[in-house]
Amino acid sequence: MTSRLTVLAGPTAVGKGTVAAWIREHHPEVWLSVSATTRPPRPGEVDGVHYHFMSGEDFADKVGEGEMLEWAVVHGRASYGTPRGPVDRALAEGKLPLLEIDLQGARQVRASMPDARFVFLAPPSWDELVGRLEGRGTETAQERAVRLDTAKVELAAQHEFDHVVVNDDIRRAAEELVSLMRSH
Amino acid sequence: MTSRLTVLAGPTAVGKGTVAAWIREHHPEVWLSVSATTRPPRPGEVDGVHYHFMSGEDFADKVGEGEMLEWAVVHGRASYGTPRGPVDRALAEGKLPLLEIDLQGARQVRASMPDARFVFLAPPSWDELVGRLEGRGTETAQERAVRLDTAKVELAAQHEFDHVVVNDDIRRAAEELVSLMRSH
Repeated sequence: MTSRLTVLAGPTAVGKGTVAAWIREHHPEVWLSVSATTRPPRPGEVDGVHYHFMSGEDFADKVGEGEMLEWAVVHGRASYGTPRGPVDRALAEGKLPLLEIDLQGARQVRASMPDARFVFLAPPSWDELVGRLEGRGTETAQERAVRLDTAKVELAAQHEFDHVVVNDDIRRAAEELVSLMRSH
Repeated sequence: MTSRLTVLAGPTAVGKGTVAAWIREHHPEVWLSVSATTRPPRPGEVDGVHYHFMSGEDFADKVGEGEMLEWAVVHGRASYGTPRGPVDRALAEGKLPLLEIDLQGARQVRASMPDARFVFLAPPSWDELVGRLEGRGTETAQERAVRLDTAKVELAAQHEFDHVVVNDDIRRAAEELVSLMRSH
């Protein structure tokens, strides 16, 4: 059996990270990709676990060698990306590789790995997503409107994906995702 | 003769916008794509000239219909993208269409229009780019280091492009680009 890369993406605040953390905890057979970044580690962050921490020089080398499956400069301040080598190795070893990234990253991976399985994590409902976004702190009505506009745009991207998994319950959504990853 | 989309991208502060503005002024035969955005117009900005100003709802509709060649949410605050329809029409009418976008946008366009011509606008030298970045205002040494790291990463992306045009002089670089667009 050849293994296949699964890419998990979705709108802001839908809970991608939580679903990935649940899988890390309960499904050791799933190989979770670790992102690379040029930002300095925060207290408690471990190199190779939370991120591969890299200098700008090393990150640039990877980009120059075509060794970043996807990458982006965030807020002009730091680069984030997915090194290709570990993903290729996980595939070659027949593991179940999972990449949890943002929507723009997913679009980039499609350009270089069109055979990957693209899964969109969706909120159970629009109201539920609004609730999660509002729980994020104090905002003016204007900021809130802008955030909801963004969420609408991000939700509209789901038609580009092979599967949509609804995050009504973290455990259920994670299990559905792992089942998808095991299917042919 | 079939026309072909040309995509111009490059690192921050390399002068993409200035080169595009020069072409707009001196080469009316070039059709310049106008980006769509959900942010409100600033004073002096004209709808359809500087941007296509759209509601989040309309932008989301375009994304949902696969009508955005590339798009991104910037700083979580507003969406920017390239509507596909006008580009397709410009191509069908045999115009010379030019898309000036960022590196992540260019990677997305490659996924949907692999036959486009991808041109990287490069600074004449590393020192020159450093000078332009430093001219951007007062920054701490740390902020400056981060910005230069970012520039290194962005420069490393040039290997993904079909052509590299060096922006040593706006007029010369613009003319080289237009010549490339006219070639087969």
